Amino acid sequence: MDRERLERQFDFIKEIDKEKFIQRQTKLSDGVRRENDAEHAWHMAIMTVLLSEYANEKIDVLRTVTMLLIHDIVEIDAGDTYAYDEEGQKTQHERESRAADRIYSLLPEDQKKKLRDIWEEFEEGETAEAKFAHTMDNIQPAMLNAANGGVAWKERGISMSQIMKRNAHTAEGSQKLWDYAFENFFQKNIDAGNIRDDRKRD
Amino acid sequence: MDRERLERQFDFIKEIDKEKFIQRQTKLSDGVRRENDAEHAWHMAIMTVLLSEYANEKIDVLRTVTMLLIHDIVEIDAGDTYAYDEEGQKTQHERESRAADRIYSLLPEDQKKKLRDIWEEFEEGETAEAKFAHTMDNIQPAMLNAANGGVAWKERGISMSQIMKRNAHTAEGSQKLWDYAFENFFQKNIDAGNIRDDRKRD
Repeated sequence: MDRERLERQFDFIKEIDKEKFIQRQTKLSDGVRRENDAEHAWHMAIMTVLLSEYANEKIDVLRTVTMLLIHDIVEIDAGDTYAYDEEGQKTQHERESRAADRIYSLLPEDQKKKLRDIWEEFEEGETAEAKFAHTMDNIQPAMLNAANGGVAWKERGISMSQIMKRNAHTAEGSQKLWDYAFENFFQKNIDAGNIRDDRKRD
Repeated sequence: MDRERLERQFDFIKEIDKEKFIQRQTKLSDGVRRENDAEHAWHMAIMTVLLSEYANEKIDVLRTVTMLLIHDIVEIDAGDTYAYDEEGQKTQHERESRAADRIYSLLPEDQKKKLRDIWEEFEEGETAEAKFAHTMDNIQPAMLNAANGGVAWKERGISMSQIMKRNAHTAEGSQKLWDYAFENFFQKNIDAGNIRDDRKRD
């Protein structure tokens, strides 16, 4: 009994090693190497342990950490879809659902259901845990871009209206962290000329 | 109040990005690229969520996951000490203590104490959580080496007596996982000639 279960668990554990090869657009703090999905998830998991005190609603930290650890596993098949890639986003959900079907099915039935449910909860973004996880998912790359002197925003010609659209829900997980990120990561890089401020003013 | 606290928290969060540049000896499942500390921690955190059911004693999963997420942060200053580097191991504790002093001090006092205590608990290896974390820390690289066809063991001429010494306490966290690892990762690679079996026989 244990043996078949363990084999399925280790099949999954071996498979997810591939997440370390999925590159994101974000550059690490050296400003050179691009981050991969596993590094991104690790960073956000620690951030959640340290920053959960700022959640708008009390969150279950273990559930949120688990959500962040696993939320990009689907990209092993579906690839990373860049935050500002509007074409890619049209097919993203379907590609990721197929990936979830395949990869989570490696696990024993109960754990397949548990992890898939947590991933869908993240996708739906309705619970306090999912909202906070999205706050982390938006703030962590902004923190790295700011740490690199804002070159990634500048190189890609990213505008403040794109950033505000991307971050439409960031404050729903934590108003305090959104305020901090806005002031320290975005406003400072508008002031430095790295982010184009194309918002209409009254 | 929040502001100074948030600044210290983000100073730490930015600093630990450097863990992504600390390379381990283990190769990833492609058999080519070496794993880094952040990837290793991410992998073990998910393993803990999936495998905690096999712990000899019931463990606090969030505490164990947190322990594994942070346990190598000291290597940002102290570097990775290879499991079979006996010279490096003589100075390892002192180098890592100095690193912990510097890096955890970036955090607000309460979180500095919390994370440093968890790291020291890991180092002492006495609690159920620390024992299980060490089981993960020993089994995860063995799983990857086996996934690569055992070439890392063969290239370095690793012997079974070295492996048994390294794994003297692995079963203390989980007898079932040690039994599984012994049979599937080590015994199979003895049989395949990748690990030298130098144990004395009666």
